[in-house]
Amino acid sequence: MKQESPVEYALVKRCIDLASNIAVAESCSGGLIAHRITNVPGASTIFKGSVVVYANEVKMHVLGVPEDVLAAYGAVSEAVALAMAQGVRHRMQADFSTAVTGIAGPGGGTDEKPVGTVYIATASPSEAHACLYHFSGDRSEIKVQTSETAMISLLKLLERS
Amino acid sequence: MKQESPVEYALVKRCIDLASNIAVAESCSGGLIAHRITNVPGASTIFKGSVVVYANEVKMHVLGVPEDVLAAYGAVSEAVALAMAQGVRHRMQADFSTAVTGIAGPGGGTDEKPVGTVYIATASPSEAHACLYHFSGDRSEIKVQTSETAMISLLKLLERS
Repeated sequence: MKQESPVEYALVKRCIDLASNIAVAESCSGGLIAHRITNVPGASTIFKGSVVVYANEVKMHVLGVPEDVLAAYGAVSEAVALAMAQGVRHRMQADFSTAVTGIAGPGGGTDEKPVGTVYIATASPSEAHACLYHFSGDRSEIKVQTSETAMISLLKLLERS
Repeated sequence: MKQESPVEYALVKRCIDLASNIAVAESCSGGLIAHRITNVPGASTIFKGSVVVYANEVKMHVLGVPEDVLAAYGAVSEAVALAMAQGVRHRMQADFSTAVTGIAGPGGGTDEKPVGTVYIATASPSEAHACLYHFSGDRSEIKVQTSETAMISLLKLLERS
């Protein structure tokens, strides 16, 4: 186990212990959550996959995020994070899921939603939650913090299950 | 530009120059291709997204890989790599795509398809190709070589376009 970043190992172990599987939907983490989970040998037994979604139409067509939710709340919103988490859980027929949507920078920030604004959602068969985070740093650092926080959130959900 | 690994920067630049966009489907690279492309600032303008597919049913339901192709040739095959590349290009309405399917190890290898066996496909509106590679090293090294080779293959296709 890597000492500096064990959360993906704990996550895979918890899934194996529960005989449960997971799926991920990633916007601003850009594939880093999938990359970290699949670095763990044996992850293939519990990891259904990830949809890395940069384009809004992919959020609609591949994840089933409703167009009116995207139009009403914007891509970086609690409602879209929840729809992504529930969408990927459904499309990949997974037990649990996490989804992230946010602004990794350096462009794309606004006064209302500055660079580092990230919504992270988790979903299980019985519940779904989303939280708003404000991360700081450059694009790479925001990707790392987003992936770390999403995996910790999913692990906490699994530990309650 | 990072000196040690510039291919994702060259790929994003070439897409911007062509006003073209790309999509990715990843099995054994596990999200590393998406992670590397999205490390490049401005990638959001040309990157539609990636589907990281570990489970066969996700290859079918999310990418549209035909069940009979999976049954006839197996998940690690030229036919499945081509179907993944064409499927993700279609599902994400992208101009160009690359797809990889292989065995990153440490488990999953056979005499016929040992660890390091990887098929890499590329697709454009007018053509699709797949090549077989035999990479060596541990799981992490095979992921890196797979991502590097897929992005070089996609860049070569873009340079012919």
